[in-house]
Amino acid sequence: MGMAPVAHVLFNKFMTFNPKNPDWLNRDRFVLSNGHGCMLQYALLHLFGYGVSLDDLKNFRQIDSITPGHPEAHDTPGVEVTTGPLGQGFANAVGLAIAQQHTAAVFNKPGFELVNNHIYMFFGDGCAMEGIASEAASTAGHLQLGNLIAVYDDNHISIDGDTKCAFTEDVTKRFESYGWHVQWVKDGDNDLEGIEAAIKAAKEVKDKPSMIRLTTTIGFGSKLQGTGGVHGNPLKSDDIQQVKQKFGFDPEKTFVVPQEVTDLYHKHAADGAAAEQEWNKLFESYGKEHGDLHKDLTRRLKGDLPEGWQDKLPTYKPGDAAIASRKLSESVLEAIYEAVPELLSGSADLTGSNNTRWKKAVDFQPPNLGIGDWSGRYLRYGVREHAMAGIMNGLSAYGTIIPAGGTFLNFVSYAAGSVRLSSLSHQRVIYIATHDSIGLGEDGPTHQPIETLAHFRALPNMMVWRPADGNETSAAYYMALTSKSTPSILALTRQNLPQLEGSTIERAIKGGYVALEDKDAKITLVSTGSEVSLCLEAVKVLKEQGIPARVASLPCVEVFDAQDKEYKLSVIPDGIASMSVEVMSTLGWEKYSHEQFGLNRFGASGPYKEVYKKFEFTPEGIAKRAAATVEFYKDVKPLRSPLNRAFQQLI
Amino acid sequence: MGMAPVAHVLFNKFMTFNPKNPDWLNRDRFVLSNGHGCMLQYALLHLFGYGVSLDDLKNFRQIDSITPGHPEAHDTPGVEVTTGPLGQGFANAVGLAIAQQHTAAVFNKPGFELVNNHIYMFFGDGCAMEGIASEAASTAGHLQLGNLIAVYDDNHISIDGDTKCAFTEDVTKRFESYGWHVQWVKDGDNDLEGIEAAIKAAKEVKDKPSMIRLTTTIGFGSKLQGTGGVHGNPLKSDDIQQVKQKFGFDPEKTFVVPQEVTDLYHKHAADGAAAEQEWNKLFESYGKEHGDLHKDLTRRLKGDLPEGWQDKLPTYKPGDAAIASRKLSESVLEAIYEAVPELLSGSADLTGSNNTRWKKAVDFQPPNLGIGDWSGRYLRYGVREHAMAGIMNGLSAYGTIIPAGGTFLNFVSYAAGSVRLSSLSHQRVIYIATHDSIGLGEDGPTHQPIETLAHFRALPNMMVWRPADGNETSAAYYMALTSKSTPSILALTRQNLPQLEGSTIERAIKGGYVALEDKDAKITLVSTGSEVSLCLEAVKVLKEQGIPARVASLPCVEVFDAQDKEYKLSVIPDGIASMSVEVMSTLGWEKYSHEQFGLNRFGASGPYKEVYKKFEFTPEGIAKRAAATVEFYKDVKPLRSPLNRAFQQLI
Repeated sequence: MGMAPVAHVLFNKFMTFNPKNPDWLNRDRFVLSNGHGCMLQYALLHLFGYGVSLDDLKNFRQIDSITPGHPEAHDTPGVEVTTGPLGQGFANAVGLAIAQQHTAAVFNKPGFELVNNHIYMFFGDGCAMEGIASEAASTAGHLQLGNLIAVYDDNHISIDGDTKCAFTEDVTKRFESYGWHVQWVKDGDNDLEGIEAAIKAAKEVKDKPSMIRLTTTIGFGSKLQGTGGVHGNPLKSDDIQQVKQKFGFDPEKTFVVPQEVTDLYHKHAADGAAAEQEWNKLFESYGKEHGDLHKDLTRRLKGDLPEGWQDKLPTYKPGDAAIASRKLSESVLEAIYEAVPELLSGSADLTGSNNTRWKKAVDFQPPNLGIGDWSGRYLRYGVREHAMAGIMNGLSAYGTIIPAGGTFLNFVSYAAGSVRLSSLSHQRVIYIATHDSIGLGEDGPTHQPIETLAHFRALPNMMVWRPADGNETSAAYYMALTSKSTPSILALTRQNLPQLEGSTIERAIKGGYVALEDKDAKITLVSTGSEVSLCLEAVKVLKEQGIPARVASLPCVEVFDAQDKEYKLSVIPDGIASMSVEVMSTLGWEKYSHEQFGLNRFGASGPYKEVYKKFEFTPEGIAKRAAATVEFYKDVKPLRSPLNRAFQQLI
Repeated sequence: MGMAPVAHVLFNKFMTFNPKNPDWLNRDRFVLSNGHGCMLQYALLHLFGYGVSLDDLKNFRQIDSITPGHPEAHDTPGVEVTTGPLGQGFANAVGLAIAQQHTAAVFNKPGFELVNNHIYMFFGDGCAMEGIASEAASTAGHLQLGNLIAVYDDNHISIDGDTKCAFTEDVTKRFESYGWHVQWVKDGDNDLEGIEAAIKAAKEVKDKPSMIRLTTTIGFGSKLQGTGGVHGNPLKSDDIQQVKQKFGFDPEKTFVVPQEVTDLYHKHAADGAAAEQEWNKLFESYGKEHGDLHKDLTRRLKGDLPEGWQDKLPTYKPGDAAIASRKLSESVLEAIYEAVPELLSGSADLTGSNNTRWKKAVDFQPPNLGIGDWSGRYLRYGVREHAMAGIMNGLSAYGTIIPAGGTFLNFVSYAAGSVRLSSLSHQRVIYIATHDSIGLGEDGPTHQPIETLAHFRALPNMMVWRPADGNETSAAYYMALTSKSTPSILALTRQNLPQLEGSTIERAIKGGYVALEDKDAKITLVSTGSEVSLCLEAVKVLKEQGIPARVASLPCVEVFDAQDKEYKLSVIPDGIASMSVEVMSTLGWEKYSHEQFGLNRFGASGPYKEVYKKFEFTPEGIAKRAAATVEFYKDVKPLRSPLNRAFQQLI
């Protein structure tokens, strides 16, 4: 209720959009970072004629409705990004603003200002306190994103009551320190003219993001206005009645929209539809002068990749040199960046370690810094993992970009809040997560992930790839880029990996395949990444002991899960024992193996080969446990593959 | 190398510590938040005579050394907290400063200033960019922590090179906006007097934390000084030689400390030992005047709890009312807060939802705000989950406090970076994680954890508790408080839970027990939290179908894992099938059951009972899958308990 006045002004006086086509590229974007106030957003969508009916509003927070408790992008027409977890929308908006700036730089041509929309975002005290918003705000200031206008709902109330109990910083000064343009509207409840003037002034500032501090009264009009009692709680019925009376509505009626309101909002929607018509004409004539760009943009908006791009993916033969998978990833980027122009790479200050930058990459930077330009396809995120992930969600949501961003696998955990939303909101985002295990060596336990892959394998709609060699790395990129609504984490090594005998892109894109077959095998070793080649060595040790063994490489269990049962049972068959081998938590590997060899403790600082040896991740250490597994299961009848289950999981 | 001058001044001119007793309570604390520079810290520890030898320095980053790649508190005498993951040390230092302020308020008495130490912290550009440091800095400014002095290594270099590429904000102004006192020493390489004056001035500011911006040259003295080439990379040998020559050392010698340096540092160490002697005398006479406080502080420093505290833990009988476990947790806090004075609770702005505050709690606040005082035992962390966790690690590391902090389970993920370090650095920290599942209902998928428990169960040295009723909740607190070097996450419901027939504190502290026995059972239902009572209902449905069943409650798998095998097999026995039931990711449950019923997709927004029904988490839905499980396993011989394994895991 506190943000209703500014929302009314913003949507009707400044924003251009067509409710009949929520996907129109050049629409202004609106992000509600304080997503718990989503009833305001749903009500606006309804008033403007988006596909949100009065019944949908009545079904607020009900099962299978399109009006869930927090805004979800893929559920509700007109909701741009999924918000609610505080601070996320802030970072998403920064991503949308970068995407807008970049898309304009690439596609706008003299006489054809195809892309000139703005990104508007509301945030509250909760968002302002979250680290991700601080990171994103600092980034936006550095990048001089003049197309981003944020309205800060300065209502002095959070769930614990007055913000005075925990949040007494000078928010204005903080945003100025980031390089933002800041204005203050002191009576956000009533001063509609002041609000309008502030947004107008913000639009005129081209070289800085803008923050409008709007002092409002939470639950404005309610008997409880200005208290924590209206934060997320519904009003009591007598209070609702008096509010309605105060603002001139019939207190007895609910879910009624006065005709003059409907007329006003529908008029604005019609103006937006006309604006899109104009734009469509402009785009058509653009096509005559700039045919290739027209084709490229049209393709990007469909989410399709350029024809034949996959032919650029590097392939490897068994004789080829051993290479770290972070370097193999770099080779993929180097090979495909020209073919896939929507790919925008970057790193959270680990460019040289993550190998995320192709040689000829131009940085995305404000041109006046002299170190890049707006058309640049490489983002320097700084040491800001959480904002990087939130920004990537926004980049993806804009519709013209596929973002890839690097950090150490261990520090993808810093970004967990946003990674979760990549999955939930179906964003095609690629996390390039190098230094994926104790194999990073000397940096030690503070940097060696143990729990991280278990975490993200438990996250629905996330592909976790841990490629074992060059072909598997190419396969990981193939799947990451072609899966339009699923994000990916590519867990990559620091240390060199040999090219495997049995690997091909075609096999690896199934998520799992037989890397070494033996029809007489008594055990299947199921492994990923750097341990697959160790397992192949272990097979030799086992052979000497008279135990024939086979190896299954499972670079991505989620993709493997999606194969048909017959195929899966050909990889991990009935009748013989199986053991997983991965140098991290064994949690979850019971699903693919009878026994598990992993690391359910923290690692150690030292040269990586010694660390592997300390924990017995050697051919001998693997063989010893494999032999024990064969022995243990020899009397079990029938010995089913762990993939054989009593019932189907709900998905 | 850039921070050596300030370290020399700080340690020798300002800090008081006794290297022979790194645990002395009133020592000044030093935190190296930019932990990748730990060789500086190890060298200082060696020079002052801590238990770090020249051989230890030579074994830097070698296997099983006490000088790992980043500082680890429990490995190296004199290292206060585990740092390296950027921003963590910053938050830890804020926690140490809070702990100091609180401990002083509780124990200092006229004539007995027992606790008056300072917290010094170094941080770099990387830390400054991390959201957790922003959150912690805002918190410290709000709390007016005058005992905290931070030195910002303003060297303009991060791994990607010049910070100009991503970090151009005005850091001075930002810290001022948080309410910090800020000074700038422009020549941190040479201006030792300026450094000394700045630290002196900072100590005089009693009502604000201090930040000294120290402009330094990274790799000062090296040929590569001032470039990214010296960030984390060793110098080449010719460069090392010229550096040594430049600073007056013999370029041919390595690991040699000139006698005058040794003398100077040992003299300071001896002064510190004498200061501790003085303090010990003071503490002894304190004991004569303030016997109870003396006893209390002595006990706290040993990590022991007061005798008989556990008798205060609430117990419940089957007839008692159904209560949400977040409320049961509140009852525990209410019952024990007087008996356990070192317990310091708090919440990340969800006090009323997390139920973390006992009724008579006083807030920890600067007295001049009029809403609490320094002796207060309730912390308002604001919406800053990551900083809350990092601060709690610092609170715990101080030695006189057991911190407990609340947020929704879903948002413990925002704090994952710090939660990991709670485990790695053996801190007794309690995460009160309410709204633990789809059972939170209307807030919807953005707030409903699916992957979170799998994540933290995969984290070594973490107890994840998901209690099913009142007795289990008391048991969770018993274990969380008595486990001196293991943190805990208590996953608690929003919805009411009935008191179980079979539960007692004694049984539950084993981590798993038989909640319902049946000697003829054909299946064990293995469950946690809110699903245990559903399983008990499912047993009735199964009985009608002629399938006798039993129920095992596993509130904490990590504690259950630590029981002897005979006991564990009495809970999940050989010979019958088993199925886990938990409304979240099934990942990991294969370890404790043959089949798993869970939720490997995101949840839904709606009233919680409807959400449970949608996903078939009903007695009927459970019974259906249990029956399928019995059928599937009836022909397997021998049917071993999933706890029977071929070999032991490394731990």
